[in-house]
Amino acid sequence: MTKHILTVDQFDVGEVERLFQMSDEINQKIDQKREKELLRTLPGNILFSFFCEESTRTRFSFETAGMLLGMHVIGTENAKKFSSMVKGESLRHSIRTMCELRANAIVLRHSTEGSAKEAAEIADPYGVSILNAGDGKGEHPSQALLDIYTIRNSFDKLENLAVACGGDLANGRTVRSLVRMLSSYDDISFRFFSPRELQMKQDVLDHLEKHGKRWRVCKTMEEALKGADVIYWTRSQLERFTSWQKIGRYFRALFAGNGKYIIGKHEMETWVKPDAILMHPLPIKDEIEAGVDNDSRSKYFEQVKNGLLVRMALLKYCLQ
Amino acid sequence: MTKHILTVDQFDVGEVERLFQMSDEINQKIDQKREKELLRTLPGNILFSFFCEESTRTRFSFETAGMLLGMHVIGTENAKKFSSMVKGESLRHSIRTMCELRANAIVLRHSTEGSAKEAAEIADPYGVSILNAGDGKGEHPSQALLDIYTIRNSFDKLENLAVACGGDLANGRTVRSLVRMLSSYDDISFRFFSPRELQMKQDVLDHLEKHGKRWRVCKTMEEALKGADVIYWTRSQLERFTSWQKIGRYFRALFAGNGKYIIGKHEMETWVKPDAILMHPLPIKDEIEAGVDNDSRSKYFEQVKNGLLVRMALLKYCLQ
Amino acid sequence: MTKHILTVDQFDVGEVERLFQMSDEINQKIDQKREKELLRTLPGNILFSFFCEESTRTRFSFETAGMLLGMHVIGTENAKKFSSMVKGESLRHSIRTMCELRANAIVLRHSTEGSAKEAAEIADPYGVSILNAGDGKGEHPSQALLDIYTIRNSFDKLENLAVACGGDLANGRTVRSLVRMLSSYDDISFRFFSPRELQMKQDVLDHLEKHGKRWRVCKTMEEALKGADVIYWTRSQLERFTSWQKIGRYFRALFAGNGKYIIGKHEMETWVKPDAILMHPLPIKDEIEAGVDNDSRSKYFEQVKNGLLVRMALLKYCLQ
Repeated sequence: MTKHILTVDQFDVGEVERLFQMSDEINQKIDQKREKELLRTLPGNILFSFFCEESTRTRFSFETAGMLLGMHVIGTENAKKFSSMVKGESLRHSIRTMCELRANAIVLRHSTEGSAKEAAEIADPYGVSILNAGDGKGEHPSQALLDIYTIRNSFDKLENLAVACGGDLANGRTVRSLVRMLSSYDDISFRFFSPRELQMKQDVLDHLEKHGKRWRVCKTMEEALKGADVIYWTRSQLERFTSWQKIGRYFRALFAGNGKYIIGKHEMETWVKPDAILMHPLPIKDEIEAGVDNDSRSKYFEQVKNGLLVRMALLKYCLQ
Repeated sequence: MTKHILTVDQFDVGEVERLFQMSDEINQKIDQKREKELLRTLPGNILFSFFCEESTRTRFSFETAGMLLGMHVIGTENAKKFSSMVKGESLRHSIRTMCELRANAIVLRHSTEGSAKEAAEIADPYGVSILNAGDGKGEHPSQALLDIYTIRNSFDKLENLAVACGGDLANGRTVRSLVRMLSSYDDISFRFFSPRELQMKQDVLDHLEKHGKRWRVCKTMEEALKGADVIYWTRSQLERFTSWQKIGRYFRALFAGNGKYIIGKHEMETWVKPDAILMHPLPIKDEIEAGVDNDSRSKYFEQVKNGLLVRMALLKYCLQ
Repeated sequence: MTKHILTVDQFDVGEVERLFQMSDEINQKIDQKREKELLRTLPGNILFSFFCEESTRTRFSFETAGMLLGMHVIGTENAKKFSSMVKGESLRHSIRTMCELRANAIVLRHSTEGSAKEAAEIADPYGVSILNAGDGKGEHPSQALLDIYTIRNSFDKLENLAVACGGDLANGRTVRSLVRMLSSYDDISFRFFSPRELQMKQDVLDHLEKHGKRWRVCKTMEEALKGADVIYWTRSQLERFTSWQKIGRYFRALFAGNGKYIIGKHEMETWVKPDAILMHPLPIKDEIEAGVDNDSRSKYFEQVKNGLLVRMALLKYCLQ
C-alpha cells in the first residue's frame, strides 16, 4: 500500500516514536563525512516539490532532505502563479501529470484544505507518495512532528509537561496540530494566551476534553509563561485573513497595552523558567524580539535543524 | 554537426521511427531498478532549462528527462519576468551566456516565433544543442512527437486512420504540428470541428492538399467524432488572444448551444468508437469533462508518460 | 576559521594570483571528459543559492559551478518576492535557517549594501561560507575577480595598462570594484568617460590618489578609447535609480549627440587599438552595438566563461 503523510492523526504514539528513532539515526550520521554517504538510500528516486504557496523554508527543508537521500529533486516555487494553473489546470491533473512523470514522491503545499487528501487519492494507484507540506487551514504534519521531536529531545520525555501557546491560536495550523498531537501523552496541560479574536477554536478544545487534558485561557502573559515547560509562540497568519479590518483588529490586539503578546528579554528573565524551552514555527515577525534569539532556551533554529531530520525520516518511511 | 530540435519538419518518417524505437528502449528500462541505472548515459552533462513563459508540465518533463539521463539541470521558471531580461538582455546574449557556462543543451520556451531557430544559430559554433519547447505561435516539436508516438503505440501503426481535431485549431500549435506531421503517412484523413473564429488555418490546409490528404470541416460534434480513430481535442490558447473581446467570442462559441465543443460521458458513449482514442495536449480547462479521465480510451495522461520517454530520446539523439 | 567571499579588499595581490592559478587548473580540466570528473571535489556539499534580486546570469554561473564541483544546489529565484520574506522574515533568520539546513555555502544576492557582511556574522559560528553575489550598491567580488582574470589572461600581465571606463561609473558596482582592485598593480592608468550625472565617485578617486595612480576624466569617446589597452563599458543601473526623472536625464545623456556613449563598429575601427580588449559585465542594453559581438577584441562572453572558472575556484577556496 502506498504510504502518504497527510495528517498527524495517521500516526499513533508508537509510530511517532519509531519515526523519531529514525530521525535520531539520521542525526548521528549526517555530520560525519563517511556516514553521510550511507544516507543516500534513495538514489535515482524522483521528488517533485510542488508549492502553490510561497514557503521557502519548508521547500528548502524538503528539497535538502530529498537530495541528502540521493533523490532527484524537481520543483516549482510558486505553482499557483507560474504553473499550468494559469491555464486552468486542476490540482488533480497536476498531480496525475507528476505521477506519469515517474515521481516517487510529491511534496505538496496548497492553499485549499483537503487538497493533500485529494492528491493522495489520485496518486494512490500510481504508488506515488504525497507529503502534505501545508494545505490551507488544514494540516502541516511534518511541522507538527518536528515540533514534538524538539520537545522530546529537550526533555527526554513527552509526559508531564505544561505547555503555553500564544499568539494566533485560531489560524495557526502548526499550533493546532501540536496541541492535538500532544494530547496523546500523559499529564500534559495547556495554557492559551491570545487576542480574543484569535482564540483556540472549539474543535481543538473538544479534542482536549475528550482526552481528559487540562487547559485554561490566560488573561496575562505572566499567567501563561510562569511555570510553563514549553512555550510555543506563533505569528499572525496574515495571509489567511480575509479582510483588512480583521488584520487591523489583530494588530491592535497584539501591540496595544505595551505589546502584551511580544516576548522579549524582560519576559524571558522575569517569567520563563530556566529549564523551559521557547519554540516558534518561524518566520518570526515582531512577536519575539531579536535579542531572544541567542537565549539558550530559544529552540526555533533547532526546530529547523530537526525539521530536516524528520523530513528525511518521513521520506524514508514512505519510500523504503 | 550540432544537432538541434527545432521543428517537426527536420525529421523524415524513418528518423521519427528511429526516435520512437529509442523511446521504446527507454520505456523497457525505466521501470526496472537495475536497468534504470543504465539510462544515466549523460552524466556530468549540463542542461539549462530556460522558460520565458510559464509551462510547468513541459519544464518538469524535460528536467526529469535530463536528470534520469544523469545530467545537471539548472533552470529558471519565468525568465521573461525574473531573468536578466528585466535589464534588457537580448535572447541572443542569454543563449550565448548559457553556452559559455558550458551548457551541453538548452531547452528553450519563448513567446516569439522563430526564437528557437535564432538560438540555434548562436549555439551552433559552441556545439550546444537547442531543444525548442515552444516558440510562440511557432512549433513545439517534442509535443508533436509524443502525440504521434502515442497514436503509434495505441494502433501499432500510423496509417489508415481517421483523425478528428476539435477546439481551438487556429492557435493551438500542437494540433497544427500534429496534422502536418501525420500528413506524411498513408491513408490518413482529417475532420476539423471548431468555432468559426478558430478554424484550422490555410497554411495547414494547403499542406494537406499538397500531400493529397482528405479533410473536411464538420458542422456538429457528432459528425466529427463518429467513426474517428483518433480524437485530438484542444483548449483555447487564451494567453495568445490579443483582446478580451475575442476571448469572449470564443467562450460564447464554446459553451453556447449546450456546450457543443465539450466532450463528456454522453459523447464518449454515443459517438466515440470502442477502439478510438481521445487525446489532449493538456492542460484541460472545460473542453473535456473530468468524468472522462478514467475512460480507457482517454490517453492524455499516457501522453504525459510518453512525453518523458520521447524527451529522453531527443536528448540522447542530440548529445550522443 | 570560516572563509567568506565578501569584498575584493579581502585579497592581496598574491592571493588573487593563487585564485587565478586555481581557475587555470580548472580550465585545463573542464573540457576533458575524464579530467572533468576530477573536478567533483565537493560531493554531497550543499549550496544554497539565495537571490533576493533577479540575476539569472550570476545565479546560473554559481549554480553551474557548484554542480560541476559535485554539490547539491538548492535555490530560489526571487527570494524577495516569493520566500518567507513575504511573511516578514528577516535576512538574519533566513541565513540562520539555511545554516541549520546544513548548508556548506550560501550564495547571497541582496538589494541592501552590507547584507553579505551581516550574513557572514550569522553564518560564522556554523562554519558556513557566505559568497556575496552582489549587495545593492556595495560589492560583487566574484565579478571583479573574473574581470581581472580576463585582463590577466588577455595580456599575460596586470601591469602597465591604460584602462578606459565608460558608461554609468557612479552606480556600476563592478566598474567601481575593478578600478579599486587594479590600483594594486604597477603602472596602471585610468580614463573615465560618462555623463556628468554618472561620474566616478570621490571615494574611488581618493583610493586612486592614495595609491598614486594616474587618472583623468575624458570629454570625448575618442579621448577615452584611443591608446587604451582595456576598455570597460557599462550599462546604466536603471534598477538603482530612485526617480524616473533621473533615468530620463541619463538616457538623454547617453543618446544625445549621436549616441556618444555607444560603441559600434565605427568606433572599434577608428579608435580602438588592434590589441586592446573590450569588456562589459553584461547585460548589454544599447551601449555596445550587436555588430561588435564577434569582434575578436570583444571579451564579454569570455568574461562569462571565466566567471564559471573563478566561481569554482572561490567555492574550492572556501570549502576545501
